[in-house]
This record gives sequence, C-alpha cells and structure tokens, in this order.
Amino acid sequence: MERKALAYEGKAKKLYETEDKSVFLVEYLDQATALNGAKKDAVKGKGQMNNQITALIFEKLADKSIPSHFIKKTSKNEQLIKRVEMIPLEIVVRNVAAGSFSKRLAIKEGTLLPFPITEFYYKEDRLDDPFINEDHVAFLQVATKEEVKKIKELALQVNQALQELFVSIDIRLIDFKIEVGRTETGTILLADEISPDTCRLWDIETNEHLDKDVYRRDLGDLIPVYEEVLQRLEEKGA
Amino acid sequence: MERKALAYEGKAKKLYETEDKSVFLVEYLDQATALNGAKKDAVKGKGQMNNQITALIFEKLADKSIPSHFIKKTSKNEQLIKRVEMIPLEIVVRNVAAGSFSKRLAIKEGTLLPFPITEFYYKEDRLDDPFINEDHVAFLQVATKEEVKKIKELALQVNQALQELFVSIDIRLIDFKIEVGRTETGTILLADEISPDTCRLWDIETNEHLDKDVYRRDLGDLIPVYEEVLQRLEEKGA
Repeated sequence: MERKALAYEGKAKKLYETEDKSVFLVEYLDQATALNGAKKDAVKGKGQMNNQITALIFEKLADKSIPSHFIKKTSKNEQLIKRVEMIPLEIVVRNVAAGSFSKRLAIKEGTLLPFPITEFYYKEDRLDDPFINEDHVAFLQVATKEEVKKIKELALQVNQALQELFVSIDIRLIDFKIEVGRTETGTILLADEISPDTCRLWDIETNEHLDKDVYRRDLGDLIPVYEEVLQRLEEKGA
Repeated sequence: MERKALAYEGKAKKLYETEDKSVFLVEYLDQATALNGAKKDAVKGKGQMNNQITALIFEKLADKSIPSHFIKKTSKNEQLIKRVEMIPLEIVVRNVAAGSFSKRLAIKEGTLLPFPITEFYYKEDRLDDPFINEDHVAFLQVATKEEVKKIKELALQVNQALQELFVSIDIRLIDFKIEVGRTETGTILLADEISPDTCRLWDIETNEHLDKDVYRRDLGDLIPVYEEVLQRLEEKGA
C-alpha cells in the first residue's frame, strides 16, 4: 500500500493516508524525545526497533484476545493500522513504583505495588500532558463515563497480558502507557504503540533498565538496549 | 471546658485536649499562610473571624442535615469539637474554574463548570499536598473504597448547602476544600473548618474576592474582607 498525504506528525512517528480511507501507514522515526520534547535527539535505528517491537507486541496481544489498531508490518520502519478517532488520553498502569508516581508520593522506585494503579493524563502538549482525574475527563468531554470504564478495564487486561509476555523473556513490567481510539462503530481499540518508549522494563535478574529511561536519564546507548528487548521477544516471547 | 495538653498544632489552629476525652478545644490563630506555608504572616483578628465564620457555617449546615465535628463556640477565637480520626485528604469541590484547576487545564478563571468537579489531594506537607486519584487513595490506605464513595457524596451535599447559604448573602461559591474524620463508630464526619481560608468566595455583583486569595495574591487587607463575609452571614445568611 502506497503512502499518500501526511495525516499527522508526532514526536516519533508520522502517519500517512493510504488509498484505503480506513487505513493509515505509520512510519517510525529515528527520533528520541523526553520531557515532553524538551530533550530531543536523532537516534539511528530507533524507528526500526520500535516498529518491530510494537508489531510483535500487538500480534502477541491479539493472540491473547486483545485486538488493537495494528494490521501488519510493511517494512522495517513502517506498519499499517486501522484508522480510529484517537482519544486524547495517556492511560498509565503501574505495577511497581517509578517515575512521577515515586516523586508524587515519595515511594522508593522499585517498590512493588499491592495492586495495579491506573492514572489518566490529558494528552495536550501545550499543557505538558497534565495528570487528571475522572471528573476532569468528563469535563474535557474526551470520553464518556461508559468509555472511561471500558478504557480502565482494557488497560488492566493489557497489563495482565503484557506482564505474562515480558516475564516469559525475563523482564519485569514496571509500568506502561497506552493510548486508545474509537472505531466508527464506537468500539474502544488499543492504538498508538507499545515499545520501550512507552513501557518501563527492568531485567528480572539485574534490574537493568531496558527502556527509554536509558535515554531520559542518560544511562547509556539506547539502541543496544532496544535490540536486546526485540531479540528476546523474537526468540522466546510467549 | 478547660484547655489541657496541646494535641496538635496546625498552620492556623491549635487543638487542645479537654477533661472530656471525646472533645477537643480549637484555638483559631492570628496567622495567615499560603503556598503550603511558604508565605506566612501574623494577621491580627483573623483567628476570631475564622472561628466565628466556621461556627456559623457549621451551625447552618447542621440545620440542613449535614452534621460536623462542631459542638459550640466558647469564645471569640475558640470552639469545642468532637474528636475524630482525621483522614489525611483535602477534598476540593469546584463550581467555577479558578486556581490550580485553571492552571492545570488552561481554563479561564471564572468559567462556570457544567457540573461540580471533585478532586482529592493527599494532605502531607512534606509532599506539598499532591493531587491524587482514587487508586492512589486506595494505595495510601487513607480511606476505603466505601469511605471514598461516602466522602464524595458528602462533599457534593456540602457544596449544595454552601451554595444555597452563600447565594443568600450575594456570594458565589467558586470552590472550597473540606476535610473529614472518622468517628469511633466509623461514621464519616465533616471536620476542620469552613471559612474564607478554605473557600473561594466572589461577590455576586462585582466578582470581588472575599477570601484568602486577597492574601495569596496580595490584593489588599484580609481582615475587612473576612469581616464583610462574617457580617453578611450574621445578618442574613439563610
């Protein structure tokens, strides 16, 4: 399927229209960003890594009865997706304290949480993607109460499935962010990407960071780490 | 009833034990603070104002079937309260956009909200009272799911009653903060204070600030403003 007009340009992806109105082509870029774009670097090979990892993960999730917008990978850095109306929320699920959660509540990074904690952030660059609650979601009219319920259920199902997948490749899923969209018939569908850009992944033995914190916190080269995740997924991801 | 040992010292109040184990005496202090104590000034007469306003409001709320920890005023700057186990939450209800809500979502101050928005903050000075969601409340184990439901219902009832009260004295209730406690039998009871320190109150005609924003934002003297609120409440508060 051929690329047509650019439909959307994000920080690490470009979306193109195709000859099929209901299908977008996603190009994953060699671009790393953090702190809502304040830190930004070209990282050769990153687009390919995230495209391949996301494709693999969406396939594994489909096998576990969690459909997504993913259709198929068409090249090393491109994939086709179903066109959905994106809901401007970032839905975070946390299994282990880290990042902003650790800071907000002064909980030591690495503390196992007694249950998965869900958080909503309003996806709005000019506001720095603020943390919000369900009353704010209703006020912003980004999702109905019924949709919010479904989104939370979906996020917890994704968490369960991802934990199973990552533990099979000796990785602890610390936390992750998903985005969702609405199909034409109103179904909530998992969208965007799932990759070391959107998950915190720690090696189960060494607690080594296998995710974007390597870049965010200047801990070393990102590519070997992302390659490690891809290789483990390809070799033995269950 | 006589003051005994100091039980608790807050930023604007001292709580003393009394001969009755189930009763505290509260002394309202001549102390104004903002920005979690970063801004702090002695303001002569403020303790008397807030003690009298809080007493009056808790009496009016009791008339509207909303009980609180309030027993009776014993002097201009003192009142007796029932001893409860305080729940470390600040519960905010908003009718009109202002303050941190306006900042978080870039909504112009003064925008009427289509429904009252409730927010929880974790009352913890060393964390600057962070905004949290219901999963965080459960994680922090400060209140059960059932209690959270009751607290939200109570907050909305208080909102309804306060709006009626303030509109009768030509004041718009923009937003307010309450705190609640648990009685020995596990009932959730309205506690702390309700005053221009804890409410945003705008004159219905002029939109003049009749609350602590006068101090927070250096808009003028606080005492004449608090006196105005007290006088209106005493003269015609319904």
